Amino acid sequence: MKQLDRSDSAIGLDLHHFAAELYPICRSITGDGIRRTLAAIQNRIPLQISEVPSGTPVFDWTVPKEWNVRDAFIKAPDGQRIVDLQKCSLHVVNYSTPVHATMPLEALKPHLYTLPECPDWIPYRTSYYREDWGFCLSHNQLLALPQGEYEVCIDSTLEDGHLTYGEHYLAGRSAEEVLISCHACHPSLANDNLSGIAVATFLAEQMSRSDLRYSYRFLFIPGTIGAITWLARNQNTTGRIRHGLVLTCIGDAGGFHYKRSRRGNAEIDRAAAHVLGHCGEPSEILDFSPYGYDERQYCSPGFDLPVGCLMRSVWECFPEYHTSADNLSFIKPQQLAGSLRVCKSILDVLENNRSYRNQNPLCEPQLGRRGLYRSVEGGASRAEMMARLWVLNLSDGKHSLLDIAERSGMAFPLLSDAAELLQRGGLLSVEPNEGVGEECSNGVFETGKPNAHIEGVVLSRSGGVRQ
Amino acid sequence: MKQLDRSDSAIGLDLHHFAAELYPICRSITGDGIRRTLAAIQNRIPLQISEVPSGTPVFDWTVPKEWNVRDAFIKAPDGQRIVDLQKCSLHVVNYSTPVHATMPLEALKPHLYTLPECPDWIPYRTSYYREDWGFCLSHNQLLALPQGEYEVCIDSTLEDGHLTYGEHYLAGRSAEEVLISCHACHPSLANDNLSGIAVATFLAEQMSRSDLRYSYRFLFIPGTIGAITWLARNQNTTGRIRHGLVLTCIGDAGGFHYKRSRRGNAEIDRAAAHVLGHCGEPSEILDFSPYGYDERQYCSPGFDLPVGCLMRSVWECFPEYHTSADNLSFIKPQQLAGSLRVCKSILDVLENNRSYRNQNPLCEPQLGRRGLYRSVEGGASRAEMMARLWVLNLSDGKHSLLDIAERSGMAFPLLSDAAELLQRGGLLSVEPNEGVGEECSNGVFETGKPNAHIEGVVLSRSGGVRQ
Amino acid sequence: MKQLDRSDSAIGLDLHHFAAELYPICRSITGDGIRRTLAAIQNRIPLQISEVPSGTPVFDWTVPKEWNVRDAFIKAPDGQRIVDLQKCSLHVVNYSTPVHATMPLEALKPHLYTLPECPDWIPYRTSYYREDWGFCLSHNQLLALPQGEYEVCIDSTLEDGHLTYGEHYLAGRSAEEVLISCHACHPSLANDNLSGIAVATFLAEQMSRSDLRYSYRFLFIPGTIGAITWLARNQNTTGRIRHGLVLTCIGDAGGFHYKRSRRGNAEIDRAAAHVLGHCGEPSEILDFSPYGYDERQYCSPGFDLPVGCLMRSVWECFPEYHTSADNLSFIKPQQLAGSLRVCKSILDVLENNRSYRNQNPLCEPQLGRRGLYRSVEGGASRAEMMARLWVLNLSDGKHSLLDIAERSGMAFPLLSDAAELLQRGGLLSVEPNEGVGEECSNGVFETGKPNAHIEGVVLSRSGGVRQ
Repeated sequence: MKQLDRSDSAIGLDLHHFAAELYPICRSITGDGIRRTLAAIQNRIPLQISEVPSGTPVFDWTVPKEWNVRDAFIKAPDGQRIVDLQKCSLHVVNYSTPVHATMPLEALKPHLYTLPECPDWIPYRTSYYREDWGFCLSHNQLLALPQGEYEVCIDSTLEDGHLTYGEHYLAGRSAEEVLISCHACHPSLANDNLSGIAVATFLAEQMSRSDLRYSYRFLFIPGTIGAITWLARNQNTTGRIRHGLVLTCIGDAGGFHYKRSRRGNAEIDRAAAHVLGHCGEPSEILDFSPYGYDERQYCSPGFDLPVGCLMRSVWECFPEYHTSADNLSFIKPQQLAGSLRVCKSILDVLENNRSYRNQNPLCEPQLGRRGLYRSVEGGASRAEMMARLWVLNLSDGKHSLLDIAERSGMAFPLLSDAAELLQRGGLLSVEPNEGVGEECSNGVFETGKPNAHIEGVVLSRSGGVRQ
Repeated sequence: MKQLDRSDSAIGLDLHHFAAELYPICRSITGDGIRRTLAAIQNRIPLQISEVPSGTPVFDWTVPKEWNVRDAFIKAPDGQRIVDLQKCSLHVVNYSTPVHATMPLEALKPHLYTLPECPDWIPYRTSYYREDWGFCLSHNQLLALPQGEYEVCIDSTLEDGHLTYGEHYLAGRSAEEVLISCHACHPSLANDNLSGIAVATFLAEQMSRSDLRYSYRFLFIPGTIGAITWLARNQNTTGRIRHGLVLTCIGDAGGFHYKRSRRGNAEIDRAAAHVLGHCGEPSEILDFSPYGYDERQYCSPGFDLPVGCLMRSVWECFPEYHTSADNLSFIKPQQLAGSLRVCKSILDVLENNRSYRNQNPLCEPQLGRRGLYRSVEGGASRAEMMARLWVLNLSDGKHSLLDIAERSGMAFPLLSDAAELLQRGGLLSVEPNEGVGEECSNGVFETGKPNAHIEGVVLSRSGGVRQ
Repeated sequence: MKQLDRSDSAIGLDLHHFAAELYPICRSITGDGIRRTLAAIQNRIPLQISEVPSGTPVFDWTVPKEWNVRDAFIKAPDGQRIVDLQKCSLHVVNYSTPVHATMPLEALKPHLYTLPECPDWIPYRTSYYREDWGFCLSHNQLLALPQGEYEVCIDSTLEDGHLTYGEHYLAGRSAEEVLISCHACHPSLANDNLSGIAVATFLAEQMSRSDLRYSYRFLFIPGTIGAITWLARNQNTTGRIRHGLVLTCIGDAGGFHYKRSRRGNAEIDRAAAHVLGHCGEPSEILDFSPYGYDERQYCSPGFDLPVGCLMRSVWECFPEYHTSADNLSFIKPQQLAGSLRVCKSILDVLENNRSYRNQNPLCEPQLGRRGLYRSVEGGASRAEMMARLWVLNLSDGKHSLLDIAERSGMAFPLLSDAAELLQRGGLLSVEPNEGVGEECSNGVFETGKPNAHIEGVVLSRSGGVRQ
């Protein structure tokens, strides 16, 4: 792995601080919560914000009404606020319709959600597509509620408005794109939401410092309906997406899980598997399944985009999932930094994966004469020499560096460095048909420009070194 | 697995009773034993009986003379019948030429066959293609024989006659066929013979109650020479066989074994492997080998039909094989019923395996709006929801339901039900090129008629609901 | 495995004696050492010797100056020869430039090489492409050297001369070739050098006694530069190489290792894997890597020849590698004989691997009638019968005998014998497109002649039974 600019521990703390900044916001799939979240991201990277009106048809779905909540509480018979949105954004069932009433405990109970098996945790509940209201609280709190009259208040609005999402675009030498997508619609849930947002934001910052082969599009969107909306509005240009990653649950202490794209053996699948296999942390590769996060939409059969999903613990498979225990102490600076590093390494593979042609294909070239061979008096390390021999042997125009990495078992950066060295020495040339990103334009897409048809407010794009 | 009409235990007893009815008959590859067996089957399902004359050339073989035996015994020096065909049909070497003589024990001994390693069991021996005579008895009985003169009598005939086999044909919507074949030429051997006959007969009964996509042909034939004869007489129409199963040794207490067809990955191979993997009993998939039962002929290179072999214990691999210990207590009602259920499940896969096309391929359709999604307030089970998501995701015209079952690991009926539901909801359509059985005729074969060229007596075909 | 003419133990001793004869010679990649070695081989098989002048360009390399050494020693301050080339050819760094000087111990030390971790062994060192001089000795000897003035002498020459290699060619019915290559450039190293030379020489002797389908070319060459030189001089005719084996480290007590060709699934790879799997000794199949012996050159991407490498212990992986401990007691007569037998078995597979066509493809032919089936009264063994059934079943013109061996798990000779028997019985015919070696010429290469363009002295080719 290439050394990052700053130490992992410093980056980890920055990532965690950013997650902490976003933590209190009561996000939902529409409304001011996600707008405030996007604004916080904009303090770090340029974002193009799209606002899509309620009622807009998006494939089989319709953009819903916009939901906003100002206050929500339950007052006990003694007049004390015993459940209070201001204390935890999970307390109100997301998308609750407004209510203000007084009722006995028995009438209130059908609107209360708890986790009897984890009696101290508050569950996270939503009711997006069925109008209802409710509160979430710990089971122990529920058990302690006395009989009597309760004042309940949800000061929410559910009205025509907009669905909001943000895009960050980095133009590369090619218009072909890498898509990085994370959902930004969950309230105070740290691993399942904020970890992905934080890592994606920092990754965008890091990538903006490089000369890029591919263009990069980072999506900060509401889950499901946001991805569907984005795909509906960009249907004609999804063909430019060469690789993609959904980032979620990427900050907890668990090992990595990468879920393959529907294609199963796309370059992103192979790059992720390779990097995880060499990252020094436990990791597991999971087959695609049509359940999970927004890879469900990107990998629907009509799109079938090469988009996988990178996680640490798998959603639904850790007990803290969708509870108040998925909090800021559940995500760790070191793991956030490690996830960022792995993402960067995967993108490094994509950026540098190409096929070369050995210019001396008949027998080995004499590396020793060029100082490129291991010798009694030092010179290359054994690993460096092996990397050179592998690259030379398989660079027949039919094997990419990733192919060579897979066959040799060697780490991609070692092979990539070897290829660069051999190319400088005239022993290797890039295959001419390795089109992507090698020329300014591939004749199909305009290079270095955001999609012309994306509507909404285009904000200043200050950060781009190549604009 | 779909629920059967009657309980497994009732069906198991019926299967066992049917095997018991057939058990005493002294069957051989020709003669009245197999005729009586076919007559017993005809009491349950319509059969078309074919009689092929001795001497008829069938490929590299010739239909042999017909063998019949009325009586066979050995009388001890004291005049007692110590070996008696009436007591056990295994006592005479099958196809023994007639003999009536008196001889000392030492002259008799070369004609006596025993199993020293299992001294209480009587072996099963044949001498189809070398004229000879002999008796089989237990080794303990042999050891107890006193010196003296023995009267031996085999009252058999080996003369020009016929080879007899039976066919049961069920016409489906397509003329393409599923072949179910079992041998009916072994005398009192329960697992190796009667289990297959009983299960095939009951399976034919069960299938006749359904509206069928495929046509079904059940063969009750003498092993090897019968299959060769049938193939020789139906050589030009074997192309209509889309799937096939040989049933043998399917009633003992062992787990299942499925031996793949020569092709190795035919649809029948995949269907059988899938069903066995989900049947709740131990099972093992075996590669094809050119030894065994009549799959040897169906899978000879000139035919190479997609025919596998379903067994419980593998022939030759259980000690009772080809001995008197393969008797009615060696086969179990519960296992016979389980084998019938597995056969039916395999045919259910074949009947229902087709490719669909998702009518909303761009992103997921909104299942919740249609009540097809799991929700807080109930609705679909998680497995039902997953089955729907899998079917939708992979129904791109390139994946059959069996493909989806294999990739998802879900049981076929769950996916098949999901597909039916989604189709009714307009979310899925059957792929038009899924020709077989979807139209009345595929333009090549006549539908719903037995093969015109099959000779022999065509019996009344009473049972067919669709004739 | 077919029985060899003489017992393994007698052959093993002969192989070991031959290695012992070659052991004392101080070989290098050029010079009289390799010439003497080739002369010893010529006492057993005809060799065509090539002499290629120093300075000849061979692809990216240049044939080096010729090195010869007459004497080399270190005299201790007391005048005793304490390191002496006459005692062990490893004592001088191979390709040392001449030196004759007196110097204090401290000045000498940078020229002394030892193995501190194996203090009794002498290392093997070379300096082919960097002019230098040095001595190798045991570490214990180094530690015992007293201070004082040492006389060092290397009476070597490094001058324009020739690179020498030897070829043995056996003409077969086809001009298509099997290449057997071993390096002959290491001084007194028994496993890494002499084992390959001895086995290759004996293998050539054995093969010369057969009527051959393929032509065979045995190369005795200096490692790396020799293979590169040979390939450069035979570049236009390497296309005739259908199969190839590099033999090295093939005499020690370890199990077999076969390293696949770059292609990974060439016929030689499959033949070697098959033979090793049935040879009765432990064995392991290794994937190709671009490091090792001369397979590196044969498998360079511009050639990509189907050449694998057969070893017992893998070079570099045994502690005795490139030390004085790789001596005559490190290689064993029994293992040398076993390696020869395995090589012969691999070539037997190549010689006999072809596709047949079953002449009775519709059902099985009646083997019993022809005495080819297992029967009560004896006849074929079960293995023989199974081999016949397998060959018949898969001989559809699409499966070679090696395909059948792999699928059936049966040993190749059993199947090959079955095919021969069935062919004689008219049940099988050789596929007409099995061109190689079946006719006198394939129209592309001249048959039965050495490559016309090979230069150098053509020696008498006495041994060839077919010339």
